[in-house]
Amino acid sequence: MSFHQINEADVQFFDSILSSSRVLRDEESLQRCASDQTEDLCFTPDLVLQPVSSEEVSAILRYCHAHQIAVTPRGAGTGLSGGALPVFGGIALDMRRMNRILQLDKRNLQVTTEPGVITQELQEYVKEHGLMYPPDPASKGSCFIGGNVAENSGGPRAVKYGVVKDYVLNLEVVLPDGTIIWTGANVLKNATGYNLTQLMVGSEGTLGVITKIVLRLIPAVTSDLLMLVPFRSAEQACEAVNAIFLAGITPSALEFMERDAIEWAMNYVQQSAVPLPPDIEAHLLIEVDGNETDLLYKQMEALSEIVSNYDIDEILFADSHEQKHMLWNLRRKVGEAVKSNSVYKEEDTVVPRAELPALLRQIKRIGAGYGFHSVCYGHAGDGNLHVNIVKQNMSDEDWEHKLPDGIRELFQEVKKLGGTLSGEHGIGWVQKNYMDIAFDEVQIRLMQGIKNLFDPHGILNPGKIFPGRK
Amino acid sequence: MSFHQINEADVQFFDSILSSSRVLRDEESLQRCASDQTEDLCFTPDLVLQPVSSEEVSAILRYCHAHQIAVTPRGAGTGLSGGALPVFGGIALDMRRMNRILQLDKRNLQVTTEPGVITQELQEYVKEHGLMYPPDPASKGSCFIGGNVAENSGGPRAVKYGVVKDYVLNLEVVLPDGTIIWTGANVLKNATGYNLTQLMVGSEGTLGVITKIVLRLIPAVTSDLLMLVPFRSAEQACEAVNAIFLAGITPSALEFMERDAIEWAMNYVQQSAVPLPPDIEAHLLIEVDGNETDLLYKQMEALSEIVSNYDIDEILFADSHEQKHMLWNLRRKVGEAVKSNSVYKEEDTVVPRAELPALLRQIKRIGAGYGFHSVCYGHAGDGNLHVNIVKQNMSDEDWEHKLPDGIRELFQEVKKLGGTLSGEHGIGWVQKNYMDIAFDEVQIRLMQGIKNLFDPHGILNPGKIFPGRK
Repeated sequence: MSFHQINEADVQFFDSILSSSRVLRDEESLQRCASDQTEDLCFTPDLVLQPVSSEEVSAILRYCHAHQIAVTPRGAGTGLSGGALPVFGGIALDMRRMNRILQLDKRNLQVTTEPGVITQELQEYVKEHGLMYPPDPASKGSCFIGGNVAENSGGPRAVKYGVVKDYVLNLEVVLPDGTIIWTGANVLKNATGYNLTQLMVGSEGTLGVITKIVLRLIPAVTSDLLMLVPFRSAEQACEAVNAIFLAGITPSALEFMERDAIEWAMNYVQQSAVPLPPDIEAHLLIEVDGNETDLLYKQMEALSEIVSNYDIDEILFADSHEQKHMLWNLRRKVGEAVKSNSVYKEEDTVVPRAELPALLRQIKRIGAGYGFHSVCYGHAGDGNLHVNIVKQNMSDEDWEHKLPDGIRELFQEVKKLGGTLSGEHGIGWVQKNYMDIAFDEVQIRLMQGIKNLFDPHGILNPGKIFPGRK
Repeated sequence: MSFHQINEADVQFFDSILSSSRVLRDEESLQRCASDQTEDLCFTPDLVLQPVSSEEVSAILRYCHAHQIAVTPRGAGTGLSGGALPVFGGIALDMRRMNRILQLDKRNLQVTTEPGVITQELQEYVKEHGLMYPPDPASKGSCFIGGNVAENSGGPRAVKYGVVKDYVLNLEVVLPDGTIIWTGANVLKNATGYNLTQLMVGSEGTLGVITKIVLRLIPAVTSDLLMLVPFRSAEQACEAVNAIFLAGITPSALEFMERDAIEWAMNYVQQSAVPLPPDIEAHLLIEVDGNETDLLYKQMEALSEIVSNYDIDEILFADSHEQKHMLWNLRRKVGEAVKSNSVYKEEDTVVPRAELPALLRQIKRIGAGYGFHSVCYGHAGDGNLHVNIVKQNMSDEDWEHKLPDGIRELFQEVKKLGGTLSGEHGIGWVQKNYMDIAFDEVQIRLMQGIKNLFDPHGILNPGKIFPGRK
């Protein structure tokens, strides 16, 4: 793929359509848009543009489409698959200034927002009105709702409430040639033509730039209860996950953390609030929520009984807001803690839930074979396990050349277990060369056909999702 | 579009790949596949084929792709938008013999089924194992799960549990050129490439033939309560719908029926079990479900209080299984009752829920202007209102030539209210010439591009979804 190199005439054009304070070439801006949260990858763009309206996005794309300039849309840069990396340089389309919540439709339980709103701020805003937008990625305090839609993000609550795709009703999208469209309608049910809305969700900024998002909301729940269960066997913890669902209980979160995950997170936040006897291999963090506290306590009792069938230590019940916050904070900081501890790679494996124990066994077996250590944690209730492969004592040579074979073997096992490459992080840049494990040539050809249909010049987020060096 | 006319050589080929007892040309078979439940439309196919395996579907499509033969996939023929009508003749691909439930994965709460299984039979099968597949179209006793997926069907429970798309995890699909693919993986979360699964759901048999379906299931609920509320004002009934949601209650069904709907249904089933004083304009049928009966009774009390703020007659609480069955049967028979009563057309309008009263006003206004009577009913909780336009005294001339303008005006009002053409019936054959109201040329061009990508020879279910005479 070859792109036009941005020159002064291009910059002048962008200056003419955006205020020049939003056409950035200073080193700090370029570097800020060169990375996201994926490993230590860095690809510097040539120019950062900060549009404030759909019309500006449209004008930018129309120009880039005509001049064959690479454009990489960017949310808050919290992505974990390199989706926002401008791997061909060109323009980083920084959406942070499109950060208005446009309309809360309380009558219809819907909110319309621009993409640059921080997810947690959106959640807090609708909560003030008694409403709830459930999807809550670990990075909710900093990630943008637009990036969440682009990656079809999940989070702990997905196990009960579903992922982003289950809340998106309609999208305003600027197509790569600059055309502005709505993908559907602001309705709860829609059987009108092909589902362009769902096609756009999770397309990782490769088909169009999302400029407005209509989300359905639900009535806010009033109560939740939280427990942390220490298991002496990590595999048993995974087995307990399934036992909970088979008992007919749907927790609002069901998170698995290997010992290292919680230990490293405690070191990272410099709190040792959770006792960690030497024989504990893993924890389950289990939350139930609803409006009837009696019912929630009954569920906690039932959960306690179920986990007591396994080899566990004493259950910690979070009995105050502070304690809940502390436990959730530990869980949310695992990713950062791992990152601060070692060079690492994160895989976002997902399997049918009951296959979690088998997945964990395979991960450890492959790690032993290739000589890597792994820290596993994640949304066990969804069968979605984040595998953090940490470099530690691995040689640079092995890390660079041997590890990819290990990861390939891991994904092959995931596939055998009925799973696939990514549950919520997307394919982006770092997983694209494993796509042949998830799909045959035919599906990839169909997906590439869709890409070509939406983006015939291939300018939008080039180098992502599809196999190939670039 | 021009298709090859089926000749003896073609029939011989199909005889050679299917047992000849499944290659049908008798008048009865051809006529059975000439219609569905849409108005009184009839398009006779040239041949009916009844494959029993994905491989047979593949061999049929490969041949038709090579020979430019039109193929119209067909479920149980209960569709309401003409999706299964072989408008170009050719082959009716009758899926009724692919009717095995292949695997119930109780550990993962999933079921894999062939498309020709009757939806209610699938529901009853999983219920025996303590599980639930919620989507329940009115025709659940006869429709096929494959048709439900093709049309993204809804039903009364969608208001709490979502529509078909919310349960489909993965699909085996035979593409028009005969290639067999899986669209995704059997996992609860998936961010791996474009969402081919969701693209296929609701694509009305135009992109591929669905041969295996993996559905997620939920634990079965144990109890439900049902009430029927008679309103003296239909518009107030619509207003009450919204008040219920704003009070934070999510019923498991919230159905609206105009007076005529329930009256005609009672005549049709020859039961007059519901008192119908002359001043009643409409009813709401409201169900709540769950596992805690105390909680359900509390919800019924809260619902009674809310509806009492409107001008209602006495609420009927269904206090036995028989009474519930009677009320649900009335509701489910409305469609057939209207059909038996008059020549009619059914529109499947959907708007943001709070706009229902405005929608109802517009329907009646437009009806008055064009001289048609309408019977409205449907899934008010979703903003999904079925508008049955009955011919009655309208002249054939007006029915043929004036009414389409009235329907166009109706859809334009729906669009103004933020709604769209179809909530759950699909576009199929009868709504396709209104697609320009829902979408601009750009979206339609994108959808047609997707169609061309999947089906370059245009053999699969030709004449559907996209505007044009054929």
